[in-house]
Amino acid sequence: LARVALDAMGGDFAPRATVAGALLALAGLPAEHTIQLVGRAAVVERTVDELLAGEFAAHRAHRDRITVVDAPDVVEMSDKPTVVRSKPGSSMVVGLRLQAEGESDAFVSAGNTGAQMAASLFVLKLHGDLKRPAIGTLFPTARGSVVVLDSGANVDCRPEELVQFARLGTVYAQDMLGRENPAVGLLSIGEEAEKGNAAVKEAHQLLRAEPGLNFVGNVEGRDIPLGRCEHDALDVVVCDGFVGNVLLKFYESLAPMLMDVFATELGASREALLAAFKELDHAEHGGAPLLGVKGVSIISHGKSSPRAIKNAIGVALRAVETRMSEHIGRRLADAAAANERHETASTSSSVA
Amino acid sequence: LARVALDAMGGDFAPRATVAGALLALAGLPAEHTIQLVGRAAVVERTVDELLAGEFAAHRAHRDRITVVDAPDVVEMSDKPTVVRSKPGSSMVVGLRLQAEGESDAFVSAGNTGAQMAASLFVLKLHGDLKRPAIGTLFPTARGSVVVLDSGANVDCRPEELVQFARLGTVYAQDMLGRENPAVGLLSIGEEAEKGNAAVKEAHQLLRAEPGLNFVGNVEGRDIPLGRCEHDALDVVVCDGFVGNVLLKFYESLAPMLMDVFATELGASREALLAAFKELDHAEHGGAPLLGVKGVSIISHGKSSPRAIKNAIGVALRAVETRMSEHIGRRLADAAAANERHETASTSSSVA
Repeated sequence: LARVALDAMGGDFAPRATVAGALLALAGLPAEHTIQLVGRAAVVERTVDELLAGEFAAHRAHRDRITVVDAPDVVEMSDKPTVVRSKPGSSMVVGLRLQAEGESDAFVSAGNTGAQMAASLFVLKLHGDLKRPAIGTLFPTARGSVVVLDSGANVDCRPEELVQFARLGTVYAQDMLGRENPAVGLLSIGEEAEKGNAAVKEAHQLLRAEPGLNFVGNVEGRDIPLGRCEHDALDVVVCDGFVGNVLLKFYESLAPMLMDVFATELGASREALLAAFKELDHAEHGGAPLLGVKGVSIISHGKSSPRAIKNAIGVALRAVETRMSEHIGRRLADAAAANERHETASTSSSVA
Repeated sequence: LARVALDAMGGDFAPRATVAGALLALAGLPAEHTIQLVGRAAVVERTVDELLAGEFAAHRAHRDRITVVDAPDVVEMSDKPTVVRSKPGSSMVVGLRLQAEGESDAFVSAGNTGAQMAASLFVLKLHGDLKRPAIGTLFPTARGSVVVLDSGANVDCRPEELVQFARLGTVYAQDMLGRENPAVGLLSIGEEAEKGNAAVKEAHQLLRAEPGLNFVGNVEGRDIPLGRCEHDALDVVVCDGFVGNVLLKFYESLAPMLMDVFATELGASREALLAAFKELDHAEHGGAPLLGVKGVSIISHGKSSPRAIKNAIGVALRAVETRMSEHIGRRLADAAAANERHETASTSSSVA
């Protein structure tokens, strides 16, 4: 049984696309799962009624698995992240509060990403000694998906932050992709430990010393599309959010570029090309979990269609069912404890 | 008339591939152009004789356009860049010295890139107040090529260095690509001036204030494959060498990845796909000029084939003919003078 709170007001096509996405999701999920539509109650109720009276008439049976939760304020796409303090009655804050108070298991929004991050930090808080959350994105490769993180939540990362991304990405790959002992690579400009910028070189040493991490060393840009580095498979690629975001957007725009370049010759391969880039399609993966918060907060694309919202709800459920957040909390606590033991040991030995 | 010095010992397939490349190049060039083969004289002479006696017999007429210049030392691929000081008799140092002494117009090497950079700095020196050279790489896009720089010579760049890349890239695009008023974008994670890491945010302000630069603002990863940003064409993309190198290697490995993913469906589109990525093929573009040195130093891929060497010699000639280095020197001097005037003006006005 899981209760997913959906920001009914979030996204360019809300509330119609969000409510429709909720109805699509319920139709495909076991009956014990329910959805809380958070937003201006009158608007949301009306949208539900309209859809059930019209094109979603076949979904009427799921009406009682929907609860409408009133949230009088709306976060606009142009609002600054600080809006979450000035609009405590917004669907984002209200939706996340349900989870903090044990009334809900996950939150999904296609609204203002900066505001969602701020609200998630503010309401759910971060695990352990984490300073910032991260966003992991799935990149399609020749050998399945690779998790690239951070893909935009953090720029100018310190080495310790890159190490935290490795821990977060490991749990993500385990729980969301089912990889057993995820191979983690550090993105750099050469395989050798001494290659890279200052933060990466230091992170390399820290990652090498990290217990319980399957660190395969530095990987290069070329290893991502191949889904492997020279000697190993590759499940997680760690980088700062500047590099990750540039790569993500670069990759996303390649499919249209290739279509354009060989439009005439493409013919039957058109579908194959689209399939190759399918995982980069936000509607396909639905949303990316904000990693590091105590709970589940799924970030969806502002242009999410009903199908994208449905898939985002699926991502939220998988995160709830696999207890990803709990696993992240445990992993970060273990790492902190190991570091402390290590420091104590160093101190004792230097005293001795 | 141009004299190109070729590092006959540089690259994985030297001296056979380099000498063969020189013969191919001469056959395609006007008779006034000559090539200086720099390396162990006995080895190089023997290779020339063997090739002219065998598969390159048809090229015998060009023999007198080749001079062999002896260089007893050889830089190995595994040598550190500092090797250029311990091996002053290497083909790299000897080849570049010819240019510094007015005996040659350009240098081309497929050898150790780090050593070539160090030797170029050491022998040719840098223009004006430049601290480091940069490498510009051509990225194929839906609308022709875009110059991305730096693509690997510099990591942890200061804002002023990013501005220098903009100047270097502008001259590169003008002289090597024939773009009239190259549009320069600053790679970031959002179009807004306040988006990006610390260095990028400061560079944005500096670029905006730079006279005589066609700065179109921040561009995102998605704009590169499209070859344009929202309102403008795009000729030059400025980024630090970490991001540029990651992107370059990522892009280079996409063609094989896509082949792999839709191998069976590809059929006739296979050639079209390869054509789309052709410009990323090092054999096709031959080499990248090391930008900022006083002279011409072309960096070729270690795995260069004879055709790649031939094309690199073509790149060298274009740089000589368009006087790219001279234009870079003038542009940097103008920028330095403008900055000085600006500072003087600021000082006077603050005194007044």
